[in-house]
This record gives sequence, C-alpha cells and structure tokens, in this order.
Amino acid sequence: MKKLLIGILALTATTAVFGAEGMWMPQQIPSLAAELKKAGLKIDPQRFADLTGDPMGAVISLGGCSASFVSPEGLVVTNHHCGFGALQFNSTPQRDLITNGFLAKTKDEELPAGPGSRIFVTTNIEDVTARVSGNVPASLSNIDREKAIDRNIKTLVDECEKPGGVRCRVASFFEGSQYLRTTQMEIRDVRLVYAPALGIGDFGGETDNWMWPRHTGDWSYLRAYVGKDGKPADFSKDNVPYHPAHILKVSTESVNPGDFVLVAGYPGRTFRYRTAAEVGNMQSYSYPLTIKYATDLNNILRDLGKNNKAVEIANANRIKGNDNTLKNYTGTLTGFNNFHIVAQRQKREADLAAYIASHPDAAKYKDVMNQINALQQQSIANQQRDTVLGWIVRSSPMLAQASTLYRLSMEKAKTADIDRESGFQQRDWPRIAEGVNRAQKSLEPNSDRAGLRYFLNESQKLPAGQRIAPIDEAISKAGGVDQFLDQLYANTKIGDLSARKAMMDETSAQLAARNDAMLNLAAAITPLSLDIERQQKELGGAMSRIRPMYMDALRASSGGRLYPDANGTLRITFGKVEGYTPRDGVVYTPQTTLSGILAKNTASGEFDAPKAELDAIRANKTAGYVDSKLGAVPVDFLSTVDTTGGNSGSPTLNAKGELCGLLFDGTYESLGSDFVVDPSITRSIHVDAVYMLWVMDAVDGAHNLLREMNVPVHYGNASTPATGR
Amino acid sequence: MKKLLIGILALTATTAVFGAEGMWMPQQIPSLAAELKKAGLKIDPQRFADLTGDPMGAVISLGGCSASFVSPEGLVVTNHHCGFGALQFNSTPQRDLITNGFLAKTKDEELPAGPGSRIFVTTNIEDVTARVSGNVPASLSNIDREKAIDRNIKTLVDECEKPGGVRCRVASFFEGSQYLRTTQMEIRDVRLVYAPALGIGDFGGETDNWMWPRHTGDWSYLRAYVGKDGKPADFSKDNVPYHPAHILKVSTESVNPGDFVLVAGYPGRTFRYRTAAEVGNMQSYSYPLTIKYATDLNNILRDLGKNNKAVEIANANRIKGNDNTLKNYTGTLTGFNNFHIVAQRQKREADLAAYIASHPDAAKYKDVMNQINALQQQSIANQQRDTVLGWIVRSSPMLAQASTLYRLSMEKAKTADIDRESGFQQRDWPRIAEGVNRAQKSLEPNSDRAGLRYFLNESQKLPAGQRIAPIDEAISKAGGVDQFLDQLYANTKIGDLSARKAMMDETSAQLAARNDAMLNLAAAITPLSLDIERQQKELGGAMSRIRPMYMDALRASSGGRLYPDANGTLRITFGKVEGYTPRDGVVYTPQTTLSGILAKNTASGEFDAPKAELDAIRANKTAGYVDSKLGAVPVDFLSTVDTTGGNSGSPTLNAKGELCGLLFDGTYESLGSDFVVDPSITRSIHVDAVYMLWVMDAVDGAHNLLREMNVPVHYGNASTPATGR
Repeated sequence: MKKLLIGILALTATTAVFGAEGMWMPQQIPSLAAELKKAGLKIDPQRFADLTGDPMGAVISLGGCSASFVSPEGLVVTNHHCGFGALQFNSTPQRDLITNGFLAKTKDEELPAGPGSRIFVTTNIEDVTARVSGNVPASLSNIDREKAIDRNIKTLVDECEKPGGVRCRVASFFEGSQYLRTTQMEIRDVRLVYAPALGIGDFGGETDNWMWPRHTGDWSYLRAYVGKDGKPADFSKDNVPYHPAHILKVSTESVNPGDFVLVAGYPGRTFRYRTAAEVGNMQSYSYPLTIKYATDLNNILRDLGKNNKAVEIANANRIKGNDNTLKNYTGTLTGFNNFHIVAQRQKREADLAAYIASHPDAAKYKDVMNQINALQQQSIANQQRDTVLGWIVRSSPMLAQASTLYRLSMEKAKTADIDRESGFQQRDWPRIAEGVNRAQKSLEPNSDRAGLRYFLNESQKLPAGQRIAPIDEAISKAGGVDQFLDQLYANTKIGDLSARKAMMDETSAQLAARNDAMLNLAAAITPLSLDIERQQKELGGAMSRIRPMYMDALRASSGGRLYPDANGTLRITFGKVEGYTPRDGVVYTPQTTLSGILAKNTASGEFDAPKAELDAIRANKTAGYVDSKLGAVPVDFLSTVDTTGGNSGSPTLNAKGELCGLLFDGTYESLGSDFVVDPSITRSIHVDAVYMLWVMDAVDGAHNLLREMNVPVHYGNASTPATGR
Repeated sequence: MKKLLIGILALTATTAVFGAEGMWMPQQIPSLAAELKKAGLKIDPQRFADLTGDPMGAVISLGGCSASFVSPEGLVVTNHHCGFGALQFNSTPQRDLITNGFLAKTKDEELPAGPGSRIFVTTNIEDVTARVSGNVPASLSNIDREKAIDRNIKTLVDECEKPGGVRCRVASFFEGSQYLRTTQMEIRDVRLVYAPALGIGDFGGETDNWMWPRHTGDWSYLRAYVGKDGKPADFSKDNVPYHPAHILKVSTESVNPGDFVLVAGYPGRTFRYRTAAEVGNMQSYSYPLTIKYATDLNNILRDLGKNNKAVEIANANRIKGNDNTLKNYTGTLTGFNNFHIVAQRQKREADLAAYIASHPDAAKYKDVMNQINALQQQSIANQQRDTVLGWIVRSSPMLAQASTLYRLSMEKAKTADIDRESGFQQRDWPRIAEGVNRAQKSLEPNSDRAGLRYFLNESQKLPAGQRIAPIDEAISKAGGVDQFLDQLYANTKIGDLSARKAMMDETSAQLAARNDAMLNLAAAITPLSLDIERQQKELGGAMSRIRPMYMDALRASSGGRLYPDANGTLRITFGKVEGYTPRDGVVYTPQTTLSGILAKNTASGEFDAPKAELDAIRANKTAGYVDSKLGAVPVDFLSTVDTTGGNSGSPTLNAKGELCGLLFDGTYESLGSDFVVDPSITRSIHVDAVYMLWVMDAVDGAHNLLREMNVPVHYGNASTPATGR
C-alpha cells in the first residue's frame, strides 16, 4: 500500500494559537514533534503522519462515529452508542439484545449489523486545491465562482469513485484555503460481535449524558468482512474477515492523572474561526430563538402524545432530536456567556488589526475584517424570514417530504448528473429513497398540523420586509391559517408511503398534475428557497475569496500554525488526563471507579447495572484489573483533548501508542467548545480500556475476544454468563 | 465572679472512642490537652474548662441556638437564622427588614428582639448526681425510682431558680451516670443590632440548606441589655448594655485547609450510645414510617391549599416543619445505610462482649446488653399503636390543643407544684399560654379534619393487640370515621381563641361540662396516654439502673474516655478545616469564595444576592480581605468538628482562640451523624469571619460595629448603603 506522508502547505507550527487546543491534521503532527515529546509521547511522532502505517492505519470511520481495528481478523471497537443501530436491528421482543447485550462466542454467531452499516478505511488523501479553486478565474462573478468550485468538486469525487468500492470526498480546510480529497475503502459487510448490557453500555442514560462523574461502559465490537478477493462486498456467508494492515494494541494498564493521551478520529464540525460578529449573532439571535422554537414545538408534540400512545411513538424521535438540540444549544449558550465568546473574538480581531497596522508585510490584509463583516451583515439581512421559513419546513415532516420530492423532480430533469445540486445527484438517490421510507413512522397528520400551525402563526408576526410572500398568499387565499391548514391536510396524499414512492419517479409536471395540496405548497415555496440558495452561493463565492486571506492573516499574526476547523476528516488531538473545577468549592477528579457504579445503581431505569456486574463488584472479583495508584478498577476518565461530535468511538492512545480508552463524550461545561476552548474547563470523557477488559473478562465472559486481542484472561475458567444480565 | 474549674469524674481521656469525633464537656478538655496541642491549638487548653474565663465566658446560649459576645458593650453575634425571629417581629409591609436587612447605626436605633428573646449566660455548673440518683434506694420499684429521680430534679431546679434572674436545669450525662445542674443568667432585654439582607443571610435558601458548596452569610448581631443594677430586667429605655466579663476577639485572617478549629456551643441531642437493636428498629420501622406519614400528611395539606390562599397560609408552618423532618429523616436514613449503622453497633457490642469475656474485672457487666435488649423489646411492644396515636394528635392541631388543655386541668388540680408533670408546672404555664395563642394562626378546620381522617383510617388498619380502644369506640359509636368526624367538627369550640383562653383556667369537670366534642375526644384518649406514660416511666426507671453500667462497660472496654451524648448543655468539639469526597469522581474543597456568589446568583428567588454585594464583587472591592493562600475573599468553610442542631451560631475559634467563623450547618452527607460519625464524610459548615467582616465593611457599611469590635475598617469613607439592598 502506498504510504501517505503528506506534507502540504509549509506549515511549521510550534504551539496552537488559542491555548492547549487543536484538532490537528495528521500531516501537521511531525511539525509538532517537540511539543508531543514534551507532553509525554514515547513513540516517534512522525508515525502519525503515515495514514496507512501504525497506528493511523488502524483508525477508521463508521460514518458519523470513529472506531479502530483491534485484531488482525478485522475486529473493530467503537462506542456502544455507535453500535446501537446493530443491536436495534437484531433485537426482537423475544430476544432483546438492546437490554441484555450480545456476545458471539464464535464468528458463526456474529450478526449482520444492518443495512447502511459501513466501515470506512481511509486509503488516500491528496491535495486537490489546484483543481478545485486554483483554476477558477478571478474575474468570475461571485456566484459563478461558487458554481465553478462546486462543479470541480463534483468532478473530482466522480472520477475517484468510478472504480467502485470506495467513497470519495473533497473537503475544504482553513476556510477554503485548501481542498483535500479523501479516498476511503467502503466495507459493506459489517457484523455485530459483542456489546455489553444496556445497564453498562448506556449506564446513566440521558441523566448522565454530558455529565461527570460518569460510569458508562460505552463500547461495542463489530467485525469487517470482505469478499474472498479482499474487496468490499455485500453481505454474504462466503465473505471473510478483513485483514487490516495495522491494529491497535489494547493496553492493560490504565492511565493516571497527568498522563499523556492522544485521540485520533473524525470530528464533525467546529466554528473556531467564526468572527465576533458571527458568534455575536448566534449568541443574541440564532441560539435563543432555536431554543424557544424547539421548546415550543416539543411542548406541542408532548401534549398531543399525552393520552395517545400511537401519537407519542410517532413523535418520539422528533422530540428526542429537539431535546438533544435543546440540551446542546442551552449548554452552548451558557458556554458563550461563561467563555465570553464575543469578547474573546473581539480581542482576537483587535490583536489582528494591531498586527496588520504594525507589519508592512501584512498591509494586504488590512481590509479583510471589514469585508467579512460586510458579507456577514448581508447574510443576516433576511434572517428573521429565513429562520421562520426553515422551521415551517422542519416542523412539518409532511411538507419536508413534499419539498424533497418536488426538488428531486427538478434536479432529475437536468440531463447531466454534474449539473444536479449536491444531495440530489445519482449517488444520492438511494439515500433519498431510504429517507422516504424512514419518514413513514414519523408522519402523524395531527402533530404535523399542530407544529406547522405554530410556525405559520409565527410567519404572520414577521415585520414588513421579512414577510414570506408565498406563505402570506396561501393563507390569505384560504382566509386564515386554520382555514389554510384545513384545506392542506384534507387534500394531500403525502402521508401515504406508496404514493411518495411513486412521486420519486415523477416529473415536476406530473407532480403538479396530482394537485396535491402539500406538493403545491412545496412548489409555491420553491422559488423563494431557490432565491435564498442563490444568495447563499453568491455569499459563498465572495467568502471563498476573502476567508482564506483571513486565515493567512491569523496565521501570520499568531506567529505559529493553525489547525483547521473540524470537517469530518481524520484528526489528531492530544492532551493529558486531568480533572477540573466545575464550580466554586467543587473539584472533579479525572477518574471514576467501580464503587461509583454501586453508589449510582438504582436497579431500574437509567441506572440499572446488570446483576452479574454488581455481584462481581461486591465480590471484589477484580484481580488483575486494580490500578495501583487509584487502588481500584478504573471506569471512565477525563482528559484535556479537543474533540466534538463525530469523535465518538475514537481510540484514545497512551504515551506508548496503545489503546487505553475510547472517547465517548464531552462534559456539560465543555459545551461551547465548538466555538472556543477554555483549557481550564474543556474536558473530554473516555471509557478506560481496563474497565472494558474487566467487564469482558469478569462479567460478560468475552474471553474469546480477549484472546483474539491478545490480552490476558483472568477469569477464563469461571462459569460466567454470555451476557451481563 | 467565681471561677468554674470543674473536675468531676476522674476521666483521663486520651482519644475519642469512635474516631475524630466528640462533643466534649468543658471540664474534659484539660485531659485532652496533648491531643489539642497536637491538633494545633496554640493557647492553653486548660482555659476551656473555666466557664467564666476567657474564652468560654463569652460563649452563650439563645435557647435553641448558640452565640458569643464580641464587644465589651454586650454585642452578640449569632446566625442569621437564629436572629430571624427578631427580624420577623420588627418587619412590616412598609419596612421589610427580613428582605432588606437592618443596621442600627447607633444604640438608639436598636430594636427590641421581640417577646421570648433570651440570652443565657452560663454562670455555674455543679454535679448534683448524689442528690438526683444517689439518694434513691435500690429497693424501689422501677416506676417509683423514676418518680423519685424526677422529684429530686424538680426540687433542685426550684431551689436554684428561687433567687430569680436565672434559669436552671438538671441534665443527665452518660445515660444517667451523672447529673449536672446548670445555672444561667437569663437576660430578657435583647435587641436587634444588625442583619444582612436575606439574599446574604439566607443566600441559597432551602435549595442550599444542608448543601455544599455553600455561600450563605448566616450571621446577625444582637445586644444584651440589663437594668442599671447589672441584673436582668424586662425591656426598658433605661436599661444599659450588659458588660460581659469576656469577649471573643474576631479574627481578620481566614482559616485554610488543615487549620485547627474549635467550636463551643450548645448541641441539642445525639444518639451515639443507642444499641444495635435500638438503631435497627429506627432504621427499619420508625424512620421509614415517619417519612411515609409526613409525606402523606403534607400531600393532603398541599392539595387543600392549592386553590385557597388562606388555607395555604394556615398550613405553611406545618408543611415546612414536615418538610424539614422529611429532609432530615431521609438524609439520616441514607446515613444509616451508608454508615452501616446496625453493623457498626453490632461490632461495638461484639467487641464489648469479647472484652467482658476476657477481663475478670468486667464480669459484672456480662448481663448488661441482654438486659438493655430485653427492655428495648418491651419498649417497642406496642409501637404500632403508639405511633399512630401520636400522629392522630400531631395531625390535628385542634386535638393537640384540646389534649394540652385537658391535661393542664388535671395537673393544675394537684396541690403541690412539684407533683405536677414536667411541662405542666407553674414555671411552664406562661409557655403554654404562648402556645395557645400561637396555635391560632394554624387552626384550619378542613385541613385539621383531612389530616386527622388519614390517621383515623390508619388506626382502623392496626392489627389486633395494637388497636387504640378509645378511638375504636368513638368511631364505632358514630358509625364510621367520616360520621365521627362530622360530629367532632360540628360540636367543638376549640378553634376559638377566646374559648381556649378561658379553658386554660377551667377544671377537668368544667371542661367536661362544656360537652365539647374535641375536648371529649382528648379526655377519652387520656387514660391510654397516661398508661403509655406510666409504662415509659417504668422503663425509664429500669434503664436508669442499667444504662450507666453500659456506659461504664463501654468506657472500660474502649480503654479511653467517653464524651456524653449531646443534651443541650455547653460542649466543645475540635477538628480541622477539611473537604471531603461526596461521591466517586468528586471532591468538595473546604472553602468557597465570592466568585461562587456571582455564579449562583439568579437575581430572584433563593439566589438573590443584593445588588450592593454583586457590585462590590464585580468591582473587586476586596482590598484587605483577600486570603493569600486562596487568592480570593473566603465565604464559607467546611471542618471536621462534631456538631448538631443547637450548635447553630456557635463561635468557631482558630488556634489562637479567636473567632474565625460561625457554625451554621452540617452537610447532607453528614445526616446520620447524630448516630454515628464517619470522619471521612461528616463535616460541619461555617461562615468565615472574613466574609462577615467584608460584607459589613464593603457592602453594608456596618463600620460602627467593626469599630466596636476593634477590627480595621477599609471602606469607612466610601458612601455605602445602610443595608445591602
């Protein structure tokens, strides 16, 4: 396999710009060698730049989660919540794998992880900046510039995926300064191997989510299978385990306070380079309004489900999604205040201005902030209108379906696939079809109408200049919001799955001929949506000229190197095991122990550890797993590493490069860290590998896997149940 | 004044029996000298045995709270919640001292603290064991023994109080091994001098009650006044400040982790010497049942007040009282479990048995535990009946009033005051009259009936052999619980204050002639109540023979000295400033700071710090008050001292014997410490004197008091508001 020692952009970093933070690109790691050594890393830092070498060759993506290979037979360890879909897929009322956990004692007992389960092994990363933006004439208008870049990206993805068996992506780094194309081997036969009982894997449930102290055993095991030719293949009995080029060695020693840790994974999205004006608008407008709207919508949906189980079930996922948004947004908003985010950005921009003023070399940047700020003003000019319009579609799963289907008909009408909008190209059609199917269980006309009603009423409160014309017209024509809704829900087949499936293949004209009220509403909104899209593209084109300059200026003024915002690509972050002070008079120590499980256990609900585990703890069945410094078996630990959503399941490596834990969460006080990192407060939460090994050995009897991972078995002769319960 | 260097019982202690605990009698302190020196005390330990010397002469009781003199002009510092009654008494809707606080800038502005406000200065303690139990012939029956002891005590109190101006009490120590008579000067003219705003003095309210981290400024100032002759006198403009013989010097330096602290005060009641069987019954029966009954009664009362403000107000105090009981009992029950109380006692008793078996000298104790256990069995034989009967009276303030009045008539019929039951002697009549008055605002017939109904129904579920005969008869005669209640509330004047006042002077025959249904019910219950009382006295007599032997045996077997259970008399406890680990992964540090007030402040409700304080914190108006080790102004601190209810307001002394804080609470995890102390968990909460001085100086402008206490004033020239709000 070709070695990936990429050295693009002559970045010679010494320290991160804003404290002990950083989601570094693997190729940046060699230039951080001195810092890593100082922090405690014992292996050669150069190794982290080789994506197909040891250890990075073992770090993989599940699409939304991270994971790693831990045996030559393609055994994969990730979080319990990342493997949850596989448990759900294989559970029946008679065989409740979610609650009881699952252990395949042999490969024959392994279960298909379900449709859509994927393992992505990064095999190549190359700089395609020249082919994305390098060949775009500066003379193009902003919108044409944006379109040209978009077309270049589509072409690059298309040519990359043509051979098959791979998924390709062109991602923007440093705000459009650099474009990298990632090639990932896409393994389609993924099987469920082992997961502990829910009372271990999700111990603490929603109550403990984002919380410390934590006692969650958030791991599960999958296995990658390929065809006999070693290439990705659909599920087949004849498939064979994939043999990864590299695996991580699982450490049998726990980390301790102050110890070096490093996390490699696929963080999703951060906003570290948003400007003061941008975050200020989020803090004062977007976040509070989203919190209000999500709260109100959930209250509406909850009320409707109160005395109707079917309605409750139909809305459960939406409510849960809104609740997640609420906890996240509320915590982030608190973080905005606690971290003084606007002041922090204003200082950064003032420092930048001072630097530019005093460095003749930097004079070229002097208008950068003004230009960005002008564009930001432009982008929020219609935000009241755009926000309400967004929620109108979001609040009604039926309108959302109609909008997708109508847009699909428009895009399908285009002859060349490359002309189709991203998300509506041929490669996206299967995903759209899946979505049409999946939506069915959430379509509940009364709830749909109640949610939409709230936001239509909101639209009627918008000030002049921010009105949503097509909505105003529709309501006015019907004689009022309720009259409009009466007609809308009386004259639509969009709630019917077979009708929707048929619509997927219809032209815009055919859809119009149906005279379906919901499709008609979608069609009526579309010109405005397209106009907003066009404006966004225009802004995008303008920003793609100026933001790389902003990054250059920041890099120059900070005198060091920058890491790019997270964008779902492979990153490395390092730090140390460390607690924090969440509030005056309280210190969180960075490790928890088995005793905390006993203390939290309530034998029901979210704190329901399996009896086998409680028995093992009470009987001190812990020989071989007690950490000498801690005097106990460790469970979870805190570290200063810089992570976000998408990092779930990431291997945590110790100074020797061994897997000493799995990243699975951040603390509540860290919310806001997508925007700004406070080294004294921002912490990630990991499950300790020693706890995982102990449960596998002393509780779940997963001795076959321990042997496969080549770690000692202490309780292999004892008769232990196959799963914890 | 006569020096009180009491050396009764040749107790030569070295260490406390059960760890770092101990509520020591002042006279025991000299024998703990080595331990105190080792713990860090810098002054002569002997001084603590001199009750009229320095510093003990400055430690006083408010009756239910502790306090201390801090200026030669009779200035007293205690807790805010101990001076609350004085704020309540002086508040009007126009002048809300409770919310806004109060500061008398001169003595003329000081306000009467209200009726019943007392300051008790202990002037003498003497051993009266010989006159209480020493002269009781061993041949007396148990009940006659109990009566003889009771009569001896009454005689001793009577002769002591005869000269006037003093309150006397004979208290039992070491389970009846020793009786001490305390003489206290009773100062009746008490005035309110200063209290901070509620948002400081009760910052955190019920939410933070018993909680750490804490940020409560729980102090207030009173002043003792006496007649011109220096003797206690009723309130008069002509009275003069009392000049205490000794005062405490207020420290301007805060304590730090590990520092020695000592608390002198009047702890109310502990149960450290209850047996395994006794605490076992509390854990399995009394506490859970009390929790159930208090919960159910509060639910009933809350429901009734939901849509009726008058009812809500009438029941508010009872509900609050039950809530306090619930939080305390629930926490204590948790403590029983966490501290493995029964196992701890069983071990103590097993150790005792082993000691007795192996020491021929101790053979005399060999039957002690069996005898106590037999008596304990006897005492709970009818506990189902007795518990429900107790709640029947407790649940109905009207029946409680009727019972008190009926019993008063019986006791008044006795010619000699000494024959009257304790609590119904002449000295108690003013208190009973006060109670009759005070009850009026809580008498609400519908709530009364609803509560009583619940417990009458409970009585109907009692098993045979535990039935309450007079209740059964009354219900049966009426034809059912509800019929009985109809008649009961239709035919009583007990809710009428003037009627009750008249009843106070009536004979039993006159009360009977009223044919008042509530009085009749009280009269019907009385024979059973008297019978229960008689049985308790009989048990008391038996216990008074055996429990002193049990204490002797414990003392012998522990090889050291014992401290007696708390009994409302002056005690000393010492320890150090120390945090603790409330649960796995969390450490509570032992000091809080001003920043925590900002973080908790919500600008309303229970976390509503006054603006003047918030401004001072935000402006860093802290010069002269920043603790160098902490790098901040301290607020509250934790220590290992051993305290309980009654200790509130106790001065906390540092190694130099200076007042470095005021004890005001224990932690939630310490509940259960009335039974057993766990040195790793049990903590008391103090307000730091430095925080008090800072608020007085920088927030409330109480410079006159700072000067009176002879401490530096840093902000005396600034224009600060008279009170915080």
